[in-house]
Amino acid sequence: MIHFDCDYMAGAHPEVLDAIVKNNRVQTAGYGNDDFCHRAKALIREACGTPDAAVHFMVGGTQTNSTVLDAILWRTDGVIAAESAHINVHESGAVELFGHKVLALPGHDGKLDAKEVDAYLRDFYADDTYEHMVAPGAVYISFPTELGTLYSLDELEQLSSVCRNHNIPLYIDGARLGHGLAASPDVTLKDIARLSDVFYIGGTKMGALMGEAVVCTRKDLLPRFFTLMKAHGAVLAKGRLLGIQFEAFFTDDLYMRIGRHAVALALRLRKALEAKGFVPFIDSPTNQQFFTLHNEVIDRLSQAATFEYWGPRGVTESRVRFVTSWETTEDDIATLESLL
Amino acid sequence: MIHFDCDYMAGAHPEVLDAIVKNNRVQTAGYGNDDFCHRAKALIREACGTPDAAVHFMVGGTQTNSTVLDAILWRTDGVIAAESAHINVHESGAVELFGHKVLALPGHDGKLDAKEVDAYLRDFYADDTYEHMVAPGAVYISFPTELGTLYSLDELEQLSSVCRNHNIPLYIDGARLGHGLAASPDVTLKDIARLSDVFYIGGTKMGALMGEAVVCTRKDLLPRFFTLMKAHGAVLAKGRLLGIQFEAFFTDDLYMRIGRHAVALALRLRKALEAKGFVPFIDSPTNQQFFTLHNEVIDRLSQAATFEYWGPRGVTESRVRFVTSWETTEDDIATLESLL
Amino acid sequence: MIHFDCDYMAGAHPEVLDAIVKNNRVQTAGYGNDDFCHRAKALIREACGTPDAAVHFMVGGTQTNSTVLDAILWRTDGVIAAESAHINVHESGAVELFGHKVLALPGHDGKLDAKEVDAYLRDFYADDTYEHMVAPGAVYISFPTELGTLYSLDELEQLSSVCRNHNIPLYIDGARLGHGLAASPDVTLKDIARLSDVFYIGGTKMGALMGEAVVCTRKDLLPRFFTLMKAHGAVLAKGRLLGIQFEAFFTDDLYMRIGRHAVALALRLRKALEAKGFVPFIDSPTNQQFFTLHNEVIDRLSQAATFEYWGPRGVTESRVRFVTSWETTEDDIATLESLL
Amino acid sequence: MIHFDCDYMAGAHPEVLDAIVKNNRVQTAGYGNDDFCHRAKALIREACGTPDAAVHFMVGGTQTNSTVLDAILWRTDGVIAAESAHINVHESGAVELFGHKVLALPGHDGKLDAKEVDAYLRDFYADDTYEHMVAPGAVYISFPTELGTLYSLDELEQLSSVCRNHNIPLYIDGARLGHGLAASPDVTLKDIARLSDVFYIGGTKMGALMGEAVVCTRKDLLPRFFTLMKAHGAVLAKGRLLGIQFEAFFTDDLYMRIGRHAVALALRLRKALEAKGFVPFIDSPTNQQFFTLHNEVIDRLSQAATFEYWGPRGVTESRVRFVTSWETTEDDIATLESLL
Repeated sequence: MIHFDCDYMAGAHPEVLDAIVKNNRVQTAGYGNDDFCHRAKALIREACGTPDAAVHFMVGGTQTNSTVLDAILWRTDGVIAAESAHINVHESGAVELFGHKVLALPGHDGKLDAKEVDAYLRDFYADDTYEHMVAPGAVYISFPTELGTLYSLDELEQLSSVCRNHNIPLYIDGARLGHGLAASPDVTLKDIARLSDVFYIGGTKMGALMGEAVVCTRKDLLPRFFTLMKAHGAVLAKGRLLGIQFEAFFTDDLYMRIGRHAVALALRLRKALEAKGFVPFIDSPTNQQFFTLHNEVIDRLSQAATFEYWGPRGVTESRVRFVTSWETTEDDIATLESLL
Repeated sequence: MIHFDCDYMAGAHPEVLDAIVKNNRVQTAGYGNDDFCHRAKALIREACGTPDAAVHFMVGGTQTNSTVLDAILWRTDGVIAAESAHINVHESGAVELFGHKVLALPGHDGKLDAKEVDAYLRDFYADDTYEHMVAPGAVYISFPTELGTLYSLDELEQLSSVCRNHNIPLYIDGARLGHGLAASPDVTLKDIARLSDVFYIGGTKMGALMGEAVVCTRKDLLPRFFTLMKAHGAVLAKGRLLGIQFEAFFTDDLYMRIGRHAVALALRLRKALEAKGFVPFIDSPTNQQFFTLHNEVIDRLSQAATFEYWGPRGVTESRVRFVTSWETTEDDIATLESLL
Repeated sequence: MIHFDCDYMAGAHPEVLDAIVKNNRVQTAGYGNDDFCHRAKALIREACGTPDAAVHFMVGGTQTNSTVLDAILWRTDGVIAAESAHINVHESGAVELFGHKVLALPGHDGKLDAKEVDAYLRDFYADDTYEHMVAPGAVYISFPTELGTLYSLDELEQLSSVCRNHNIPLYIDGARLGHGLAASPDVTLKDIARLSDVFYIGGTKMGALMGEAVVCTRKDLLPRFFTLMKAHGAVLAKGRLLGIQFEAFFTDDLYMRIGRHAVALALRLRKALEAKGFVPFIDSPTNQQFFTLHNEVIDRLSQAATFEYWGPRGVTESRVRFVTSWETTEDDIATLESLL
Repeated sequence: MIHFDCDYMAGAHPEVLDAIVKNNRVQTAGYGNDDFCHRAKALIREACGTPDAAVHFMVGGTQTNSTVLDAILWRTDGVIAAESAHINVHESGAVELFGHKVLALPGHDGKLDAKEVDAYLRDFYADDTYEHMVAPGAVYISFPTELGTLYSLDELEQLSSVCRNHNIPLYIDGARLGHGLAASPDVTLKDIARLSDVFYIGGTKMGALMGEAVVCTRKDLLPRFFTLMKAHGAVLAKGRLLGIQFEAFFTDDLYMRIGRHAVALALRLRKALEAKGFVPFIDSPTNQQFFTLHNEVIDRLSQAATFEYWGPRGVTESRVRFVTSWETTEDDIATLESLL
C-alpha cells in the first residue's frame, strides 16, 4: 500500500538518519550548546543570507508557533492570521492558552491580502475605543499555506511592506517551507528571510525525525528566548539531535532536493489527474494536491493507496487530498496513474 | 576524554537506535496513533501491573511536568514539592506559566517528609482564610530525586497514604526512574504505579533520543489529555518515534538493564572514592555521585574526564558530581580509579 | 448639556445611593460575608424563581465575563459568541488572557442563530481532527445585545435547547439586563434564569455605582468560585457595597422601574425621530437607539446634548447612538424634540 | 459591640462619602477620563513630589498587585517577596495565574533584608544554569508589612539601592500606606515615590469605599497600561468614583489625618495593654497591634469588642490582633481599657 495521507508518516530521510546514526556516540553538552547546532546555525544563516540572524531549534510546529508568538506579541496583543491558518484551526488554541487572540481575517485560498491587512490596521487605530480592543501585534502567514498555495514574491513584498509601515513583525510559518520554495517560481529562502522578521524552516514535514529551525533577523525580537522556550517545555535536552538534522539538511542542498523531489512527483500526479479531466478544487503548486474525484475512481485508487478525504464523502464524487514527500517514488505515482 | 557531566550527552542506546533505524521506512499515522505506540503502551501497562492505565508519550521532562500538572490541578491550585524539586528550580517557571504555584516544603536530601506534607495539608484547611490561599491540589516528588536520593518503599507508602487521605493526587517525576529502580533495595515499577496516581517513565536520561511515558492509573485524572498536550505544544507529529523507543525499552528488559548498568558503575566509582577517604556530601545510591574532593584530585581527574562542579570551586577542596549512564564503561571507571 | 453618550456617566440612582449612605457606618465582615449580601442574594433568588441558585457579586462586566468563563470552560475550551459580542470586541482579550478562544459566529443584529450554533456544534464533532481544535465549551450571548436588540422568548428557548442537547452551558451577559427585560414583550427574569445555566444581572449600567450579580442555577458549574474570583482580582474587600446596592435594586421593584423608565424615554425619542422621517439603522427596542441623521440635525442637537457617533462622520449624514438611563428625564427628551 | 477585626468593615470616611454624594449627578465620561480623576492625579503627583509620574486607579489590592506585576515582569520572570508577603500568601495565587512565580525570601518581621536580596540577585546570575531558572524581575515589599511593621528610611534606601544596582524595579504595596506613613518616624510619601519605581496608595483600608492609586515614576514601566488593566478586568466603568475619592483623600490632608487618627488610637491601646504587663508578639508601630493575652482577658474584652485570633486559641493564652481605623473612636479604646 502506498501512502499519500501526509508528509510525516515515516522516520527520517536517509541522509538525515545517517547523520544521527553516525554521530550517535559523540558526546556533547545538552540543550543545543554543541557543535552540531553551532554548525547548523552557521549553515542556515549562510543559506538565508543573514549573517547576524538568531537561529533557535524547536521540536514541532505548534510548539514553535506558540512560543515565537508568545515572545513577539506584547502581553495582550493578538496576531492577525487567515481564517484557515493552522494557529486558528488546528493547534487546540495554543496561541490563546498563552494569552493571545488570533485576529482572523478572510483567507483567499489560505492567503492574507496585503490591502486587507493594511485596512485592518488602519481601522484599528482609527477606532476611538481601540484601547479596549485586542491590538494586532504581529501578522502570521504560512508558506506554503495550509491549502498548499503560495504567496508570490510580489505578494510577500506587499505584506512585508504593510507590516513594516505599521511597525509590527511578520512571522512566517514554514512547516513545509522546502516544498514551498521548490514550487515557487520566484520566492527564495533569502526572500523569506529578507521580507519577514521571524520565520521557521520546517523539518518534521521535510524529512526530519522532528525539528524546526526558527530564524529571527531582528535582534530585539526574541530576547531571552532560551528561558521562554524552557518555560514552554520547548527545549530539547539532547538538542544536538536538531543540530545534526539541520546540518544534514543544509549540506549538499538536501533540504531543497527533498522539496524538489516531492513537488515534482506531486505535479506529475496532478498532470495525470488533469489528463483524465479532473479539476483541482484548490490550485496548489506544492506537494499537496486537492482534487474532486468520482467516488469510483477514489475506490479504485484506494486499492493501492491511502489518502485523505477533504470533508465528507459525497454521493457521487468527493474531495480528496494527495500529499507527496521524500518517501514518494516515481513508481508510487506510476501505480496511481495505472489505476486512473 | 570521558564524560560524567550528565546522562544525556550522547544519542540513543544502540538497541533503541537500532529499532528507530529498522523501522524508519514503516509508514504510520501521525500523533501516536500507530502500532509502535500501541505495543509500547501495552508493554508499559504490563510492566506496571496496571492493565487499565492510560499511557501518553511526550518529548521532554519539563514539558511533561507542566502538562500533567496543568491537567491534574484545578484552575488556581498549587502543587506541593520539595524546595529542591526540578519544577521549583530548573524549569524556568513552566508550572507558573500555566497558572500554578509551586508550594515548596523543606526537602530532606531532596525528599518530602510524609508527616510534614500531612501537617501542611491539615494546617491549610484549618486556616480560616484558606479560600484566599493557593490550595494544594497535588503532591510532586521525583524518584530518584534531583540529588540522586531515593524514597524507601515505606516512605512512598506513607506519602501515598497521606495523599489519598487528603484526596489529592501524587505525581512522580521519573526522569531517571530506571536508575532509581535499579538502585532501590525495595521499590519496584509496580510499586511506583500502585502508590502514585500519575507518574512518568523517563526516557531521555535513560538512553532514548528523547521521550517520556506518562502513566496514569486514575481514569478521571487526565480527561481530553491529547487536546491539552496539543495546546501545550507537546504532541509529536511523528509520535511513532516515542512508541518505537519505549517498545525497545520494554523489550528484553532493556530499560532496567540500562539502569542497573549505570548504577553499578556509579557504585564502583563511589567505592573507589571512599577507599581513598573521600566522603560523599549527599548519600546517593543512584547514578549520580556527589563528592567533596581535594582540588588537586579534581585537577588530576580532569586530565581524563569531565564532570560538574556542584557550586563554586573552593580554596582547597570542592564539591563535584559524577553521573554515569548507558554510555559509561568499566574502562571509564578504571581510568578514573587509576588517577585517584 | 444633556448626555446620551452611555448609561454609566453619573453615580448611582438615588435609592441605591441612599442605601449606601444610610448603611455607611454599619460594620460587617469583609468579602461579601455580610447580611446585606445575604439578603440581596435571597431577593435575587426569589426574583429569579430559583431558590437554590448560587449568587456571586463582582465589580464590573469584563471582570465578570472573564471570571465566569474561566470557571465554566475546560482548560483549552473556547466559547461561542457572536462576532459583535462584547467579549470578542471590547474586552481587550480578557477571555484569551485566561487561555480561552472566542469562537466567533456571524451575528444577526448582534444575535446568535440557534440553528447555526447547532450546526457548528454538530460539525465540530463530525470533524476527524476535532481533538486538534478548540472545543466549544460554552455559548455566550448578551441580553440585550451590544446593538440593543433582544432575543425573543422563542429564540431563547431554541438556543437553550441546543445548548442542553449538546450539554454545554449557556451564559447570558446581562450588563443591561433590566433595560432588556423592560423592553421585551415576552422574556422575564425567570425565563433568563430558567433558560440559561449562568447569567449576570448588570448593575453598573442600571444605576449602581458598580456591581454585577452572577446567578448560577447549576450546582456543579462554579466550584470554589470565591478562590477563582480572588485570583482574578475580582473580590471586593468591602463586598457589602454590592450587597447593599443589589438589595436596593430588588426592593420595591427598583431594578425594573429603572429599566422601564429608560426604555420608555428611549422609545419616546425614537418616535420623535421617526416622526421626522429618520430611520434607525438597527431596530433596537431598548435604551440604546441607533439612527442615521443629517449632519445638520446632528449639529443642531449637539447644541444641547452629547451622544456618540457610530463610526466616522459622513459627508451629509452620519450614524449616531442615543442612550437613555435612570438619569434621563422627560425634559431631556423634550429638549431634543424641540431641536429636531 | 466595637470592632477591631480589620480596617475595612464599614463604608467610607464621611468626607469621602460626602464627595461621592455631592458629585453623584455630575455626568462624566467613563473609564477614568474625567476631571475628578484628572484632579486627583494632579494632587497625588504633587503630594509625591513627582510631577511626571503616571497615576492609575484600580479597585482592590489583589487586582492592583497582579496587574502591576504582570506589567513590569518579563514573560517568565518572578518577583522577590518576603515569605509572609500578601502576594505569596493571601491572593489565591493571582500572581501565578498570570504566569509569574513569587520568589519567596525569608521575612524579618515581614520585611525583606536588603543584603539578602542583594545576595540572592548576585547568586542567581552566578549560577551557570540561571537560564533554566525563574529570573527575579522585580522586588515586592509592603509598607507597612502584613505584620504591621515598617521599613526605616535607611532600610528603604538600601533596598532601593540594591534594586537599582541590579536594574530591577522596586514595587511597594501600600494597601495601608497612610497608616504606615503616619507611624513612621522618618519615611514620607515623597520618600516612597523617590525610592520605589512603582507603588500604590491604598484606599480601601484607609477609608475609601474601594480603590487604590498606582503611582509609577518610570515612564517605560507601564506601557499601554489601560489595555492591560482592561484585560485583567481592572478598569472601572464609572472610574470617576475613584477620582472623587482620591481627590477627597488628598484635600485638606485627609489621607494622612486618617492615618494619624488610627495610629494614635492603636498606640493608646498598645500602651494600655503594656501597662497591664502584656507583651506584643510583633512590635508594630502601626494600626495593627499583635498581643498575646490570657484567655480570660480575651473573653472579658470579647464582651464589648470583636477582634481576631492570630492562630489557634491556646490553652491559657492566645495571640490576637487589634486593628484600628478611621472608624475607631477614643471611646472605643476607653471601653477596652476599662475591661482590661
